Amino acid sequence: MTETAVRPHVRVLRGIDRPAVASLLAALHDSRVFTAEEVRTALELIDEWLQRGEGSGYFTYVLEDAGAVQGYVCYGPTPMTDSTYDLYWIAVDPRAHGQGYGRRLLAFTEADIRRRGGRLVLIETSSLDANQSTIRFYERAGYDLAARIRNFYRVGDDKLIFARELAAN
Amino acid sequence: MTETAVRPHVRVLRGIDRPAVASLLAALHDSRVFTAEEVRTALELIDEWLQRGEGSGYFTYVLEDAGAVQGYVCYGPTPMTDSTYDLYWIAVDPRAHGQGYGRRLLAFTEADIRRRGGRLVLIETSSLDANQSTIRFYERAGYDLAARIRNFYRVGDDKLIFARELAAN
Repeated sequence: MTETAVRPHVRVLRGIDRPAVASLLAALHDSRVFTAEEVRTALELIDEWLQRGEGSGYFTYVLEDAGAVQGYVCYGPTPMTDSTYDLYWIAVDPRAHGQGYGRRLLAFTEADIRRRGGRLVLIETSSLDANQSTIRFYERAGYDLAARIRNFYRVGDDKLIFARELAAN
Repeated sequence: MTETAVRPHVRVLRGIDRPAVASLLAALHDSRVFTAEEVRTALELIDEWLQRGEGSGYFTYVLEDAGAVQGYVCYGPTPMTDSTYDLYWIAVDPRAHGQGYGRRLLAFTEADIRRRGGRLVLIETSSLDANQSTIRFYERAGYDLAARIRNFYRVGDDKLIFARELAAN
Protein backbone atom coordinates (compact mmCIF):
# COMPACT_ATOMS: atom_id res chain seq x y z
CA MET A 1 0.00 0.00 0.00
CA THR A 2 1.46 3.35 -1.01
CA GLU A 3 1.55 6.35 1.30
CA THR A 4 -1.21 8.20 -0.59
CA ALA A 5 -3.51 5.21 -0.10
CA VAL A 6 -3.38 5.44 3.69
CA ARG A 7 -3.84 9.23 3.95
CA PRO A 8 -7.24 10.82 3.27
CA HIS A 9 -7.58 11.75 -0.38
CA VAL A 10 -10.29 12.26 -2.97
CA ARG A 11 -10.24 10.30 -6.24
CA VAL A 12 -12.62 9.29 -9.03
CA LEU A 13 -15.16 6.59 -8.10
CA ARG A 14 -14.38 3.28 -9.87
CA GLY A 15 -16.28 0.02 -10.22
CA ILE A 16 -14.29 -1.56 -7.39
CA ASP A 17 -15.71 1.08 -4.99
CA ARG A 18 -19.36 0.21 -5.58
CA PRO A 19 -19.74 -2.32 -2.70
CA ALA A 20 -18.20 0.13 -0.19
CA VAL A 21 -20.48 2.96 -1.36
CA ALA A 22 -23.53 0.66 -1.30
CA SER A 23 -22.55 -0.30 2.27
CA LEU A 24 -22.28 3.30 3.49
CA LEU A 25 -25.59 4.18 1.81
CA ALA A 26 -27.19 1.19 3.57
CA ALA A 27 -25.77 2.42 6.88
CA LEU A 28 -27.25 5.88 6.20
CA HIS A 29 -30.57 4.21 5.45
CA ASP A 30 -30.36 2.38 8.80
CA SER A 31 -29.70 5.78 10.47
CA ARG A 32 -32.86 7.14 8.74
CA VAL A 33 -30.83 9.75 6.86
CA PHE A 34 -31.79 8.31 3.44
CA THR A 35 -35.02 6.59 2.44
CA ALA A 36 -34.89 3.29 0.52
CA GLU A 37 -35.87 5.19 -2.64
CA GLU A 38 -33.06 7.70 -2.12
CA VAL A 39 -30.53 4.87 -1.74
CA ARG A 40 -31.86 3.25 -4.92
CA THR A 41 -31.62 6.55 -6.80
CA ALA A 42 -28.11 7.23 -5.51
CA LEU A 43 -26.97 3.78 -6.72
CA GLU A 44 -28.61 4.32 -10.12
CA LEU A 45 -26.57 7.49 -10.56
CA ILE A 46 -23.41 5.64 -9.53
CA ASP A 47 -24.12 2.86 -12.03
CA GLU A 48 -24.70 5.40 -14.78
CA TRP A 49 -21.43 7.09 -13.83
CA LEU A 50 -19.60 3.72 -14.02
CA GLN A 51 -21.09 3.03 -17.45
CA ARG A 52 -20.88 6.46 -19.05
CA GLY A 53 -18.34 8.49 -17.06
CA GLU A 54 -18.62 12.21 -17.77
CA GLY A 55 -21.15 11.37 -20.50
CA SER A 56 -23.57 10.91 -17.59
CA GLY A 57 -23.58 14.70 -17.13
CA TYR A 58 -21.97 14.59 -13.68
CA PHE A 59 -18.85 13.68 -11.72
CA THR A 60 -18.52 11.15 -8.93
CA TYR A 61 -15.61 11.00 -6.48
CA VAL A 62 -14.84 9.05 -3.32
CA LEU A 63 -12.89 10.02 -0.24
CA GLU A 64 -10.53 7.22 0.72
CA ASP A 65 -8.70 6.99 4.03
CA ALA A 66 -6.70 4.14 5.57
CA GLY A 67 -7.34 2.16 2.39
CA ALA A 68 -11.13 2.33 2.71
CA VAL A 69 -13.88 4.45 1.09
CA GLN A 70 -15.29 6.77 3.76
CA GLY A 71 -17.65 8.87 1.66
CA TYR A 72 -18.50 10.05 -1.81
CA VAL A 73 -19.85 13.01 -3.72
CA CYS A 74 -21.77 13.42 -6.99
CA TYR A 75 -22.29 16.79 -8.71
CA GLY A 76 -22.59 18.30 -12.15
CA PRO A 77 -23.60 21.29 -14.25
CA THR A 78 -27.31 22.10 -14.02
CA PRO A 79 -28.89 21.64 -17.47
CA MET A 80 -30.02 24.83 -19.25
CA THR A 81 -28.03 27.11 -16.95
CA ASP A 82 -24.89 29.14 -17.43
CA SER A 83 -22.37 27.93 -14.81
CA THR A 84 -24.76 26.71 -12.13
CA TYR A 85 -23.94 23.35 -10.54
CA ASP A 86 -26.07 20.91 -8.57
CA LEU A 87 -24.57 18.88 -5.78
CA TYR A 88 -26.70 15.76 -6.14
CA TRP A 89 -25.26 13.56 -3.39
CA ILE A 90 -22.73 13.91 -0.64
CA ALA A 91 -22.52 11.12 1.91
CA VAL A 92 -20.09 9.96 4.57
CA ASP A 93 -20.22 6.59 6.28
CA PRO A 94 -21.99 7.24 9.62
CA ARG A 95 -19.33 5.07 11.30
CA ALA A 96 -16.77 7.68 10.18
CA HIS A 97 -18.63 10.88 11.09
CA GLY A 98 -16.83 13.67 12.98
CA GLN A 99 -13.53 13.27 11.16
CA GLY A 100 -13.99 16.13 8.70
CA TYR A 101 -14.57 13.86 5.68
CA GLY A 102 -17.75 15.71 4.67
CA ARG A 103 -16.02 19.11 4.82
CA ARG A 104 -13.14 17.70 2.80
CA LEU A 105 -15.46 16.30 0.11
CA LEU A 106 -17.36 19.59 -0.07
CA ALA A 107 -14.17 21.67 -0.32
CA PHE A 108 -12.90 19.38 -3.10
CA THR A 109 -16.23 19.75 -4.92
CA GLU A 110 -16.27 23.54 -4.71
CA ALA A 111 -12.67 23.81 -5.88
CA ASP A 112 -13.41 21.53 -8.83
CA ILE A 113 -16.60 23.42 -9.76
CA ARG A 114 -14.70 26.72 -9.61
CA ARG A 115 -11.98 25.24 -11.81
CA ARG A 116 -14.67 24.25 -14.34
CA GLY A 117 -16.02 27.82 -14.39
CA GLY A 118 -18.98 27.27 -12.07
CA ARG A 119 -20.31 30.28 -10.17
CA LEU A 120 -23.29 28.95 -8.18
CA VAL A 121 -23.69 25.68 -6.23
CA LEU A 122 -27.12 24.41 -5.23
CA ILE A 123 -27.95 21.64 -2.75
CA GLU A 124 -31.47 20.35 -2.16
CA THR A 125 -32.37 18.70 1.11
CA SER A 126 -35.26 17.79 3.38
CA SER A 127 -36.58 20.01 6.19
CA LEU A 128 -37.23 17.05 8.51
CA ASP A 129 -35.84 17.06 12.03
CA ALA A 130 -33.76 13.96 11.22
CA ASN A 131 -31.88 16.13 8.72
CA GLN A 132 -30.93 18.98 11.07
CA SER A 133 -27.26 18.02 11.36
CA THR A 134 -26.99 17.99 7.56
CA ILE A 135 -28.61 21.44 7.41
CA ARG A 136 -26.16 22.80 9.99
CA PHE A 137 -23.30 21.26 8.00
CA TYR A 138 -24.32 23.27 4.89
CA GLU A 139 -24.85 26.47 6.88
CA ARG A 140 -21.42 26.20 8.53
CA ALA A 141 -19.91 25.59 5.09
CA GLY A 142 -21.21 28.96 3.87
CA TYR A 143 -24.49 27.95 2.22
CA ASP A 144 -27.58 30.15 2.51
CA LEU A 145 -31.15 28.92 2.46
CA ALA A 146 -32.27 30.21 -0.95
CA ALA A 147 -35.74 28.67 -1.13
CA ARG A 148 -38.23 26.39 0.55
CA ILE A 149 -40.90 24.40 -1.32
CA ARG A 150 -43.56 23.49 1.21
CA ASN A 151 -44.75 19.87 1.34
CA PHE A 152 -42.44 18.93 -1.53
CA TYR A 153 -41.29 15.47 -0.44
CA ARG A 154 -44.57 14.77 1.36
CA VAL A 155 -47.00 16.75 3.48
CA GLY A 156 -44.95 18.26 6.31
CA ASP A 157 -41.60 17.58 4.60
CA ASP A 158 -40.39 20.64 2.71
CA LYS A 159 -37.59 20.87 0.18
CA LEU A 160 -34.87 23.31 1.22
CA ILE A 161 -32.56 24.67 -1.46
CA PHE A 162 -29.20 25.85 -0.19
CA ALA A 163 -27.02 28.03 -2.40
CA ARG A 164 -23.48 29.28 -2.40
CA GLU A 165 -22.05 31.76 -4.89
CA LEU A 166 -18.43 30.89 -5.59
CA ALA A 167 -15.96 33.74 -5.74
CA ALA A 168 -14.36 34.20 -9.15
CA ASN A 169 -10.75 33.06 -9.44
CA MET B 1 -61.43 13.19 -41.08
CA THR B 2 -63.65 12.29 -38.12
CA GLU B 3 -65.44 14.90 -36.09
CA THR B 4 -63.14 14.51 -33.07
CA ALA B 5 -60.15 15.25 -35.29
CA VAL B 6 -61.44 18.71 -36.21
CA ARG B 7 -62.47 19.81 -32.69
CA PRO B 8 -59.82 20.72 -30.11
CA HIS B 9 -58.84 17.68 -28.11
CA VAL B 10 -55.88 16.38 -26.14
CA ARG B 11 -54.30 13.02 -26.99
CA VAL B 12 -51.04 11.15 -26.45
CA LEU B 13 -48.07 12.41 -28.49
CA ARG B 14 -47.08 9.92 -31.22
CA GLY B 15 -44.12 9.72 -33.59
CA ILE B 16 -46.12 11.30 -36.42
CA ASP B 17 -46.48 14.50 -34.29
CA ARG B 18 -42.75 15.11 -33.91
CA PRO B 19 -42.32 17.44 -36.95
CA ALA B 20 -45.26 19.62 -35.84
CA VAL B 21 -43.93 19.87 -32.28
CA ALA B 22 -40.41 20.61 -33.57
CA SER B 23 -41.93 23.36 -35.73
CA LEU B 24 -43.81 25.02 -32.87
CA LEU B 25 -40.70 24.83 -30.66
CA ALA B 26 -38.70 26.48 -33.46
CA ALA B 27 -41.34 29.24 -33.67
CA LEU B 28 -41.07 29.75 -29.90
CA HIS B 29 -37.31 29.97 -30.29
CA ASP B 30 -37.79 32.64 -33.00
CA SER B 31 -40.03 34.54 -30.54
CA ARG B 32 -37.24 34.34 -27.92
CA VAL B 33 -39.43 32.33 -25.54
CA PHE B 34 -37.11 29.31 -25.62
CA THR B 35 -33.33 29.23 -26.02
CA ALA B 36 -31.74 26.84 -28.51
CA GLU B 37 -30.66 24.63 -25.59
CA GLU B 38 -34.21 24.55 -24.23
CA VAL B 39 -35.56 23.48 -27.63
CA ARG B 40 -32.91 20.76 -27.84
CA THR B 41 -33.76 19.53 -24.35
CA ALA B 42 -37.51 19.57 -25.06
CA LEU B 43 -36.95 17.45 -28.18
CA GLU B 44 -34.72 15.02 -26.26
CA LEU B 45 -37.56 14.44 -23.80
CA ILE B 46 -39.99 13.92 -26.67
CA ASP B 47 -37.66 11.40 -28.29
CA GLU B 48 -37.28 9.53 -25.01
CA TRP B 49 -41.07 9.53 -24.65
CA LEU B 50 -41.43 8.11 -28.18
CA GLN B 51 -38.90 5.37 -27.42
CA ARG B 52 -39.87 4.45 -23.87
CA GLY B 53 -43.40 5.73 -23.29
CA GLU B 54 -44.29 5.83 -19.59
CA GLY B 55 -40.96 4.10 -18.86
CA SER B 56 -39.47 7.55 -19.46
CA GLY B 57 -40.93 8.66 -16.13
CA TYR B 58 -43.31 11.20 -17.65
CA PHE B 59 -46.30 11.70 -19.93
CA THR B 60 -46.49 13.70 -23.14
CA TYR B 61 -49.70 14.85 -24.80
CA VAL B 62 -50.57 17.13 -27.71
CA LEU B 63 -53.53 19.42 -28.25
CA GLU B 64 -54.89 18.95 -31.76
CA ASP B 65 -57.38 21.27 -33.44
CA ALA B 66 -58.58 21.47 -37.03
CA GLY B 67 -56.40 18.45 -37.75
CA ALA B 68 -53.16 20.14 -36.63
CA VAL B 69 -51.02 20.00 -33.47
CA GLN B 70 -51.35 23.37 -31.72
CA GLY B 71 -49.41 22.66 -28.53
CA TYR B 72 -48.10 20.00 -26.19
CA VAL B 73 -47.42 19.27 -22.56
CA CYS B 74 -44.94 17.03 -20.72
CA TYR B 75 -45.21 16.26 -17.00
CA GLY B 76 -44.50 13.48 -14.53
CA PRO B 77 -44.10 12.47 -10.91
CA THR B 78 -41.15 14.15 -9.20
CA PRO B 79 -38.61 11.49 -8.20
CA MET B 80 -38.25 10.83 -4.46
CA THR B 81 -41.48 12.62 -3.57
CA ASP B 82 -44.87 11.39 -2.45
CA SER B 83 -47.42 12.68 -5.01
CA THR B 84 -45.61 15.78 -6.24
CA TYR B 85 -45.57 16.34 -10.01
CA ASP B 86 -43.36 18.48 -12.21
CA LEU B 87 -44.75 20.15 -15.28
CA TYR B 88 -41.63 20.02 -17.45
CA TRP B 89 -42.89 21.64 -20.65
CA ILE B 90 -46.06 23.28 -21.83
CA ALA B 91 -45.95 25.05 -25.18
CA VAL B 92 -48.44 26.41 -27.68
CA ASP B 93 -47.61 27.42 -31.23
CA PRO B 94 -47.19 31.22 -31.12
CA ARG B 95 -49.26 31.42 -34.32
CA ALA B 96 -52.15 29.93 -32.29
CA HIS B 97 -51.91 32.00 -29.12
CA GLY B 98 -55.04 33.60 -27.61
CA GLN B 99 -57.33 30.68 -28.36
CA GLY B 100 -57.24 29.09 -24.92
CA TYR B 101 -55.08 26.12 -25.97
CA GLY B 102 -52.62 26.68 -23.10
CA ARG B 103 -55.42 26.80 -20.52
CA ARG B 104 -56.92 23.68 -22.02
CA LEU B 105 -53.60 21.78 -21.88
CA LEU B 106 -53.03 22.89 -18.29
CA ALA B 107 -56.55 21.89 -17.19
CA PHE B 108 -56.07 18.47 -18.85
CA THR B 109 -52.73 18.07 -17.06
CA GLU B 110 -54.11 18.96 -13.63
CA ALA B 111 -57.08 16.63 -14.05
CA ASP B 112 -54.78 13.79 -15.08
CA ILE B 113 -52.36 14.42 -12.20
CA ARG B 114 -55.28 14.47 -9.75
CA ARG B 115 -56.55 11.21 -11.22
CA ARG B 116 -53.09 9.69 -10.64
CA GLY B 117 -53.16 10.76 -6.99
CA GLY B 118 -50.96 13.83 -7.34
CA ARG B 119 -51.40 16.60 -4.79
CA LEU B 120 -48.84 19.27 -5.73
CA VAL B 121 -47.85 20.60 -9.18
CA LEU B 122 -44.62 22.54 -9.69
CA ILE B 123 -43.58 24.61 -12.70
CA GLU B 124 -40.14 26.17 -13.07
CA THR B 125 -39.65 29.20 -15.27
CA SER B 126 -37.39 32.16 -15.95
CA SER B 127 -37.82 35.60 -14.36
CA LEU B 128 -36.82 37.42 -17.56
CA ASP B 129 -39.04 40.15 -18.96
CA ALA B 130 -39.55 38.11 -22.13
CA ASN B 131 -41.30 35.55 -19.96
CA GLN B 132 -43.83 37.86 -18.29
CA SER B 133 -46.84 36.64 -20.28
CA THR B 134 -46.00 33.05 -19.29
CA ILE B 135 -45.76 34.11 -15.63
CA ARG B 136 -49.17 35.84 -15.83
CA PHE B 137 -50.58 32.70 -17.44
CA TYR B 138 -49.53 30.58 -14.43
CA GLU B 139 -50.77 33.16 -11.93
CA ARG B 140 -54.18 33.40 -13.60
CA ALA B 141 -54.34 29.59 -13.57
CA GLY B 142 -54.06 29.57 -9.77
CA TYR B 143 -50.31 29.04 -9.31
CA ASP B 144 -48.43 30.81 -6.51
CA LEU B 145 -44.81 31.82 -6.63
CA ALA B 146 -43.31 29.33 -4.15
CA ALA B 147 -39.61 30.14 -4.56
CA ARG B 148 -37.04 32.18 -6.43
CA ILE B 149 -33.43 31.06 -6.98
CA ARG B 150 -31.45 34.17 -7.79
CA ASN B 151 -29.12 34.07 -10.81
CA PHE B 152 -30.05 30.44 -11.49
CA TYR B 153 -30.12 30.41 -15.30
CA ARG B 154 -27.47 33.12 -15.56
CA VAL B 155 -26.59 36.28 -13.66
CA GLY B 156 -29.75 38.40 -13.67
CA ASP B 157 -32.02 35.52 -14.73
CA ASP B 158 -33.66 33.90 -11.71
CA LYS B 159 -35.53 30.61 -11.56
CA LEU B 160 -39.12 31.03 -10.38
CA ILE B 161 -40.91 27.99 -9.01
CA PHE B 162 -44.70 28.15 -9.24
CA ALA B 163 -46.80 25.73 -7.21
CA ARG B 164 -50.40 24.69 -7.03
CA GLU B 165 -51.88 22.33 -4.46
CA LEU B 166 -54.59 20.25 -6.06
CA ALA B 167 -57.79 19.74 -4.12
CA ALA B 168 -58.40 16.11 -3.16
CA ASN B 169 -61.13 14.32 -5.11
